[in-house]
Amino acid sequence: MKASEREPELEELPEDECLEILERHSLGRIAVVVQGQPQIFPVNYAMSGRIVAFRTGPGTKLSQAPGTKVCFEIDEYESSGGTGWSVMVQGVAVDATDSFDDVSWAAHAATPWPLAPGAKPFRVGIEPSQITGRRFRRRA
Amino acid sequence: MKASEREPELEELPEDECLEILERHSLGRIAVVVQGQPQIFPVNYAMSGRIVAFRTGPGTKLSQAPGTKVCFEIDEYESSGGTGWSVMVQGVAVDATDSFDDVSWAAHAATPWPLAPGAKPFRVGIEPSQITGRRFRRRA
Repeated sequence: MKASEREPELEELPEDECLEILERHSLGRIAVVVQGQPQIFPVNYAMSGRIVAFRTGPGTKLSQAPGTKVCFEIDEYESSGGTGWSVMVQGVAVDATDSFDDVSWAAHAATPWPLAPGAKPFRVGIEPSQITGRRFRRRA
Repeated sequence: MKASEREPELEELPEDECLEILERHSLGRIAVVVQGQPQIFPVNYAMSGRIVAFRTGPGTKLSQAPGTKVCFEIDEYESSGGTGWSVMVQGVAVDATDSFDDVSWAAHAATPWPLAPGAKPFRVGIEPSQITGRRFRRRA
């Protein structure tokens, strides 16, 4: 066995594969910047094309995110197998609740189902500027 | 059954319970703000008191995080049981690699084990300004 074969392998994922992974999952996290301080919140989401859509109640995500740069991320790790991946969506959040722009239409077409309690009558969409992903596995 | 008993229950977690949860886990995510754009990266971490410590290689986390406000988050959801929790650490990142301030000493005492490949010779500590958490469960 060559030394290089014992090294774990890290690969960048193309956007279409990132979108397939995003389609197959429903729980991620959004980072919102509030007065220079990033905050991370778990959200249940659904995809509508390239738009990440989620529902929310009144609070930081609704009051701070719309119109600002946000980040959405999902990941999965299997420590026993030494494999893992992550997908990151950078973009701008849009309050889609009562809006009819393209992003809002897309966000309305998605059907995210929040697990967390509380009324979540507002819809937020994330219009991506960049979708990137990585996967690694340890070679056998 | 009263109506209120069918509602899911959401509770804020006190800091000492957040720290216990942080101690029991090893994989989280850090949000770093780069020119106004938050980015989220999964990291393996270890706690040293209230300091979150992780190792990293050259890249965004090392070049952008130190001296800036960052956020660290862990969460877990069990969709079948309708339970979940998340813990969020807001604070400032410190490049602890060759530093000997209190945060760096604490970061050196921690032993995070990165799962992802690549040399990670640098140590970063997060000095928390705020540690918060939430847990919810659906009542039976």
